[in-house]
Amino acid sequence: MFSKSHPEAEHQRLVLHEDPRSGNCYKIRLTAALLDLPIERVQYDIMLGDTRKPEFLRTVNANGRIPVLQVGDRFLPESNAACWYLAEGSPLIPTDRFSRADMLRWMFFEQYNHEPNIATLRFWLLFVGEANLGEHQRGQIMAKRAGGEAALGLMEEHLAGREWFVGEAVSLADIALYAYTHVCEAGGFRLRDYPGVCAWLRRVEGLPHYVAMD
Amino acid sequence: MFSKSHPEAEHQRLVLHEDPRSGNCYKIRLTAALLDLPIERVQYDIMLGDTRKPEFLRTVNANGRIPVLQVGDRFLPESNAACWYLAEGSPLIPTDRFSRADMLRWMFFEQYNHEPNIATLRFWLLFVGEANLGEHQRGQIMAKRAGGEAALGLMEEHLAGREWFVGEAVSLADIALYAYTHVCEAGGFRLRDYPGVCAWLRRVEGLPHYVAMD
Repeated sequence: MFSKSHPEAEHQRLVLHEDPRSGNCYKIRLTAALLDLPIERVQYDIMLGDTRKPEFLRTVNANGRIPVLQVGDRFLPESNAACWYLAEGSPLIPTDRFSRADMLRWMFFEQYNHEPNIATLRFWLLFVGEANLGEHQRGQIMAKRAGGEAALGLMEEHLAGREWFVGEAVSLADIALYAYTHVCEAGGFRLRDYPGVCAWLRRVEGLPHYVAMD
Repeated sequence: MFSKSHPEAEHQRLVLHEDPRSGNCYKIRLTAALLDLPIERVQYDIMLGDTRKPEFLRTVNANGRIPVLQVGDRFLPESNAACWYLAEGSPLIPTDRFSRADMLRWMFFEQYNHEPNIATLRFWLLFVGEANLGEHQRGQIMAKRAGGEAALGLMEEHLAGREWFVGEAVSLADIALYAYTHVCEAGGFRLRDYPGVCAWLRRVEGLPHYVAMD
């Protein structure tokens, strides 16, 4: 879709350190696919604590988290920062100054208001299992449900009359928000309550070079 | 310090919609000060629900939060996106591609791992008051204390042998992390446990045009 628009990235080996079940990891893989950038994948199992082991903490990410994008011999944690690195100079980042900042606005919204509610409930219900949750986690379910619904409601409102989150074209804002939105039902959210969001999900899925989550 | 490096911003009226007690709002004011950019301030009281009123939701931010940076007649929520808008083209954003993404990495870390722990405890203990916390909030204090200490510990480790978070100069990563770190003791954290962080706080405070939080 956007190949040949990112000369610097093409000359460095790109390795995604990931757990393929993670939407944060998938964001980076989707960004690379849309940009037609080859990316190697090294897989970890977060349920087995792979990313808390001393070797990982020392060499990949002292914060004990994935994804991490390896660029040559340098390591870049934080999914949205990695997407930014891959997409700089491509049409996935708007050229207008305000729109560029507005794209980042939705990416910060995603990490602050969306992911901690929607992705966390999916992780708890799909991977940990409701029966295995601790009392402290159970006590947070209602607040996270309300927070996630508020985030989806804000997205629905914003998408009224729009095709994409920022301007007239797909940007990293759409990719960042798509990752956990399209699998939110695994966290107990009902996508049919958000028809505008559903139509936007289909638009993302219709992009050339789109790849699905594993 | 960096004036005349941001031609577009100089021609638009900049208004910060803020509660001056908020570190997220202060980030934007500090960025504008370091860049010598004039910025108007409109103040709200989050304790009185000013940012949840219909007028605010309709005209300033449908997400009901501050800060919002108004640029002419457009509104930009999310503190770190607003800082990015102000600083584009200035030395507060590194010119090297990897460093720019690495700066964003620390800004996403700030919003995901730092602010929800450190700023929230400060808000609960300093403004809400421990006696007024609900049971659900009380149940989160220990996890937020541990999360905040982990964030400060990671900052301490990263700053060993470094003056700034990214590269050789102050960037938005430092401003974003400074805002709630320098007042973290109001949330019950002990800065003296992090001497490298304390030395870095003093470096930020020594920058030309630095302004203190109200």
